Amino acid sequence: MPNELPSIYPLGIVGSGQIARMIHSAAVKLGITPQLMAEDSGDSAALAAPGASFRHPDAIASFAEVCEVVTFEHERIDLGMVEHMEAAGQIIRPGARTLRAAMDKVYQRRVLIGKGFTFAPFAELRGPDDLIDFTNMFGFPAVIKSVRSGGQAERGAWVVDNQNDALRVMAEQIDRDLMIEQFQPIVKELVVVVARRVGGNSRCYPVAETTNTDGFCREIRAPAAIGTRVKTEALETARAIAADLDSVGVIAIEFFLTTNGLIVNEVAARPHNAGHHTLENAPTSQFENHVRAILDLPLGPTHALSKASVTVNVIGGLDSVDPADHLHEALAIEGASIHLYGKRPRPGRKLGHVTALGDDMEQARELARRAEAALMNRRPS
Amino acid sequence: MPNELPSIYPLGIVGSGQIARMIHSAAVKLGITPQLMAEDSGDSAALAAPGASFRHPDAIASFAEVCEVVTFEHERIDLGMVEHMEAAGQIIRPGARTLRAAMDKVYQRRVLIGKGFTFAPFAELRGPDDLIDFTNMFGFPAVIKSVRSGGQAERGAWVVDNQNDALRVMAEQIDRDLMIEQFQPIVKELVVVVARRVGGNSRCYPVAETTNTDGFCREIRAPAAIGTRVKTEALETARAIAADLDSVGVIAIEFFLTTNGLIVNEVAARPHNAGHHTLENAPTSQFENHVRAILDLPLGPTHALSKASVTVNVIGGLDSVDPADHLHEALAIEGASIHLYGKRPRPGRKLGHVTALGDDMEQARELARRAEAALMNRRPS
Repeated sequence: MPNELPSIYPLGIVGSGQIARMIHSAAVKLGITPQLMAEDSGDSAALAAPGASFRHPDAIASFAEVCEVVTFEHERIDLGMVEHMEAAGQIIRPGARTLRAAMDKVYQRRVLIGKGFTFAPFAELRGPDDLIDFTNMFGFPAVIKSVRSGGQAERGAWVVDNQNDALRVMAEQIDRDLMIEQFQPIVKELVVVVARRVGGNSRCYPVAETTNTDGFCREIRAPAAIGTRVKTEALETARAIAADLDSVGVIAIEFFLTTNGLIVNEVAARPHNAGHHTLENAPTSQFENHVRAILDLPLGPTHALSKASVTVNVIGGLDSVDPADHLHEALAIEGASIHLYGKRPRPGRKLGHVTALGDDMEQARELARRAEAALMNRRPS
Repeated sequence: MPNELPSIYPLGIVGSGQIARMIHSAAVKLGITPQLMAEDSGDSAALAAPGASFRHPDAIASFAEVCEVVTFEHERIDLGMVEHMEAAGQIIRPGARTLRAAMDKVYQRRVLIGKGFTFAPFAELRGPDDLIDFTNMFGFPAVIKSVRSGGQAERGAWVVDNQNDALRVMAEQIDRDLMIEQFQPIVKELVVVVARRVGGNSRCYPVAETTNTDGFCREIRAPAAIGTRVKTEALETARAIAADLDSVGVIAIEFFLTTNGLIVNEVAARPHNAGHHTLENAPTSQFENHVRAILDLPLGPTHALSKASVTVNVIGGLDSVDPADHLHEALAIEGASIHLYGKRPRPGRKLGHVTALGDDMEQARELARRAEAALMNRRPS
């Protein structure tokens, strides 16, 4: 007797990109048949997923009706719709409360500052008066940010050195809600990925360190080269934020380690680029723990399997090089694990990532960079 | 600009089960969009794969026309069709020559004995005369086998203690081509998984040891507890067989270590159950190396990441317990990696597997057995 397709899917994944694709794979590994909703049949996620359905107005609500639990790949969603779905009894994980905090950087800061967490000084930026008030107090440089969390390839922060700079950004971004933040003397950018179940049981992955260039995350190293005090503070803060937002699933807390101490940068309520190394470097990947958490299954261990792990993102360049055309050269580099997302190249688009593990961070980094350079058909930087 | 579905898929996978499912996942990881052909939309492989197509007469040849390279999950295929497809210029990997050796145990033995490899003494069993001739020379017990490699859940070997036993099996299996083989004083059953590219570059995974009960492979341990001499002989033999059969892709050589030495038992021209541990226990899984090999991409490293690895198969019982109903209990067992295939339970059907890694084989085994028992809702054996 053949199997039958389920009439109700245990898990619905809404998303078109690599996060949805990798959540899908993790569910398949556990024997859970997920249903996926992407935007287009050629999307990264849809290329990997069975019978993906495609988005049209109101499709998400009807999609959710055939899924026991629904999860979203990113925060670019209609929060009112999610609240409406929850009110109708549909299970969305992470839920509207967590998603709101991840979507809206001002709300995120207000809620978490109210709970005692430290962010950089900030203000909403509704017009020139707000700019003047804020910069009179905190000076330049400052950072203007989009209040709404953007897409991965979408720029959402601009460093401004003076009033003219700031007014130009405000004019260019007139259609967006903006905020302004004090520029921070950043020593390191750190990320903690936390998986948390209904009821509060949670596990953190080791603190990772990211290198961002031109607004893109280029490289992730785990564990971060930080002392025990900062490590403990980052892990405890991340765990506490997950609890305060009542997050279910994987949540990632981005930190700035500044010369004045550790402050929270952003909260992302989904598996995070800085956790991709867990596919090779943990007994349970962040994607599997996301699936476990949202289906209320026991979480798996999150410790690092290697002393050093470096992930280098494969990001589309202006030269339109397609990394899929250079898989041969990259796979010849022994010991780097290559992930491509099936996406057409476009400048600034995340097309894949490479992770190398080892006993030594510099060796792992050299390996990952060589493989990434091979994929992009250039010399390692 | 959205991606588009390819007009020609780089890889076509024909199969309905977990092997096809896991080959599919490995291709997706590398950014290769495979096309899958299963028998039914509810099949294990189809549940995990995008827009799987479904088999009807002559469908495989037209499926192959939209794929650059086609691979088969198992050996239950029409060899004439494969030869015809190759003659028409389609690329099938492994190809007809390798598949024939894997499908036909008599042909396999003749070819490989001719090359100097050692099998147990055997004869074709076309009627009572063959039985008498063979058992006069080699005595009882003997093993009657189906010449054609069977499905994973299909019994293909019967130990017979006397002429009456043998005649009964021959009568029951009248529709099958049979052979008879001398019963072997088996000390251990070993498997070597080899990945081999066009042109001959190949890599072996460490020798694994299997425990079979009632005709089912229950447990796989890697590395096998064998001396250096046997290990070297097994690896060299496996590599030589892959070369002699001009195999492209992953091929698995099953051995008996007998009190008289190492002999070949069977050849399987596909990723093998005894290589499932490589999903956690190798830098490159057997599935990824199969994809790399058949697409003529460089092979990845095959060394073990742990000192000890135990895989326990999750096999359907007479009680119809569905392991998917006990995922919660099994995932609570820290450190076992659980794979379920999305299959409906049926006695004798492989429904999943559990792998535990560690520094100590007994500890890994205890963990894997506990998780398997939890999935099957019974106490560990």
